[in-house]
Amino acid sequence: MGDLVTTRKASQPGISALNKGIGYLADSADHEEIALRGWNLLNGDLTLPCAVLYQEKVLHNLNWMQQFIDAYGVRLAPHGKTTMAPRLFQMQLDHGAWGITLATAHQTLVAYTYGIRRVLMANQLVGRENMAVISRLLRDPEFTFYCLVDSAEQVDLLGAYFSEQAQRLRVLVELGVMDGRAGVRDDKQLQAVLTAVSRWRDSISLNGVEVYEGVLHDEREIRAFMQRAVDVTRRLAEERRFAGAPVLLSGAGSAWYDVVAEVFSSAGFGDRVEIVLRPGCYITHDVGAYREAQARILKNNSIASRMHDGLVPALHVWAYVQSIPEAGRAIVGLGRRDAAFDSGLPIPALRFRPGMDVPVLAPVHWSLSKLMDQHAYMEISTEDDLRVGDMIGFDIKHPCLTFDKWRVLPLLDAKYQVVDLIETFF
Amino acid sequence: MGDLVTTRKASQPGISALNKGIGYLADSADHEEIALRGWNLLNGDLTLPCAVLYQEKVLHNLNWMQQFIDAYGVRLAPHGKTTMAPRLFQMQLDHGAWGITLATAHQTLVAYTYGIRRVLMANQLVGRENMAVISRLLRDPEFTFYCLVDSAEQVDLLGAYFSEQAQRLRVLVELGVMDGRAGVRDDKQLQAVLTAVSRWRDSISLNGVEVYEGVLHDEREIRAFMQRAVDVTRRLAEERRFAGAPVLLSGAGSAWYDVVAEVFSSAGFGDRVEIVLRPGCYITHDVGAYREAQARILKNNSIASRMHDGLVPALHVWAYVQSIPEAGRAIVGLGRRDAAFDSGLPIPALRFRPGMDVPVLAPVHWSLSKLMDQHAYMEISTEDDLRVGDMIGFDIKHPCLTFDKWRVLPLLDAKYQVVDLIETFF
Repeated sequence: MGDLVTTRKASQPGISALNKGIGYLADSADHEEIALRGWNLLNGDLTLPCAVLYQEKVLHNLNWMQQFIDAYGVRLAPHGKTTMAPRLFQMQLDHGAWGITLATAHQTLVAYTYGIRRVLMANQLVGRENMAVISRLLRDPEFTFYCLVDSAEQVDLLGAYFSEQAQRLRVLVELGVMDGRAGVRDDKQLQAVLTAVSRWRDSISLNGVEVYEGVLHDEREIRAFMQRAVDVTRRLAEERRFAGAPVLLSGAGSAWYDVVAEVFSSAGFGDRVEIVLRPGCYITHDVGAYREAQARILKNNSIASRMHDGLVPALHVWAYVQSIPEAGRAIVGLGRRDAAFDSGLPIPALRFRPGMDVPVLAPVHWSLSKLMDQHAYMEISTEDDLRVGDMIGFDIKHPCLTFDKWRVLPLLDAKYQVVDLIETFF
Repeated sequence: MGDLVTTRKASQPGISALNKGIGYLADSADHEEIALRGWNLLNGDLTLPCAVLYQEKVLHNLNWMQQFIDAYGVRLAPHGKTTMAPRLFQMQLDHGAWGITLATAHQTLVAYTYGIRRVLMANQLVGRENMAVISRLLRDPEFTFYCLVDSAEQVDLLGAYFSEQAQRLRVLVELGVMDGRAGVRDDKQLQAVLTAVSRWRDSISLNGVEVYEGVLHDEREIRAFMQRAVDVTRRLAEERRFAGAPVLLSGAGSAWYDVVAEVFSSAGFGDRVEIVLRPGCYITHDVGAYREAQARILKNNSIASRMHDGLVPALHVWAYVQSIPEAGRAIVGLGRRDAAFDSGLPIPALRFRPGMDVPVLAPVHWSLSKLMDQHAYMEISTEDDLRVGDMIGFDIKHPCLTFDKWRVLPLLDAKYQVVDLIETFF
């Protein structure tokens, strides 16, 4: 790639001293230095509010998901948009992931820069500079990239651009459902895409079929949609519409990957089709929609139900009680800037008072009633033992919209010692 | 400060090549280089989605607010948490602001690092490392810092810490209302704070009174609350509770600054009390709650009603139409990662098709019906002239939760030319 896109080691560049939620740094520091500092959350070494990852729990989740995926004989391309943390991408690959899924050209650039060489951009690629980003990366023959198409118009824009670059772009056709997101709704639209692809044979290479089932909420509808994807894949293969091996069939967000795995893996494609699933939130899990989904999966899915435990929440946001201004209400230094609030407010999970040995479970009757930009209202009982300066660890709902509020997240061992800082790139 | 906290020029460090929403950079670039690149939004030089600031409109808003503030003879300490952009802080100071308001120790560190030397942290300071951040900055005699107290407990924590450092911390007592956020509710709590302050005379210096009226929504209640703040300030002055001049009386978020200015400035304090108002959102304004507030202000406030124009929305998020998968629906590459959604979804304002001369107004019947992490559903009419690859400029509601989704925002001139990139530090 020479002067075009510089590859960085995931341990570069230095962690900026100006990030929120870290300890004191006089200047940028690298990852090795961070571990040596001996910061401990419980010692008050971090500037709360602070989002932290628990190393053991992250590793548990990585193993759990890979084991599940392997049992189905399919491939995992975790959606990297959840964390946008190249060090976590690398851990996912090290645990057996086939590649990383991303949503935009910018995200792909970040992943490439930190060494990721197989990306499924589960999205339409649109816009001159977005195409230029991908075009630059494609000059590296080691880089494999797929993106989506769902209209003739879009194929023509891509074809014109990449033929000018004398490059060939691998695409998957996206299938969609009425009242859903992107994706061809019917056979007429599909034919238009295929015709457009055939116009740009030298610059556009059709390599498979993609769906996102998360726009549906009913299992029966999802199974039918997945079956449609199987049928279309089979038909296009028979019609020799694909540019050659491998043919990809890809689906699955973080809530229905079990159903997608079942339907796709039982289609009997054998080696001719690589089935690629894309859950992303499993790495930290949550106590919201994904915990609910996991309960369903552990109950209904024959493989998951035989596996030890399930996914566990691996991300907390810690904050200080800053005021208890009236009976029954504490004000906590945690806001919409610090944790997702679109799928429900954070849940008080742990309480720690500086000087205690270890955190204790927060009473179940504690709850947030309001989240402002920088503050939370926590409802408590008058008798509760809570003071200004106490630390509360919050479980979160929706990891994606929590990660994007942090530029670094300390990675903690079981003793709350900071063993690394995980950088994000949003 | 020597080895403790390094001051940077606002034009340092280089803009990272890995930020979303910018054009192509082989490596980091500085601000001077950016302006020379000649990027233009309309030429497709930026990787949409992209949040942009319109220079002329930002300048208009800066002038408008300073003129309003000057007419009341009060001081402006714009809330910097809105933008967390030191270059915008500097523009606010250059237009006459007295200092910058911030919400956390981390935000204060960022501001200090980029040259801000007077900070009102309109929040309780809690936690060992948070106190340590402030303590390090206070070693600079040029740095003036105020934060809030609202309980004896918190004063004792601060007193113990800063007396160990042999430093004296300036605090304002926060007044609050029942069912509100932080702040003393009644005289008993206030007395407890005053008693605690007197215990730590050498390390805690009481310098004024602070309120945040934004927890209330009724003008009459707000006026009564502000009057209480005036009365408490007068009483504490008479009782010689303040550590000396200047005594600060501070209030006002972005919605009720007119009422606060009226009540505070008519209290007749003269030079003995500096009245400091803290609106933050005016710099970009919005088309949500702050537009509504502005309409009320232009109608009711005698000074605002005589001034030219009002505040104007100065921030857009631009994104591509990536799919028009069914009649009446376009999918746009704009998500919850790109724009605030807590006070209403973004509003399509402008449409541009590459090749056109200038953007045109978006039809008023276009609207977003759903915002996912990386996608928006835009409802359109079947007859609308809209294509994949068209660019849409969205007005936003709630600037604070839009700024924090971007690490850099291009600053555009009236011809959509990028004249600078504004960095944020969240």
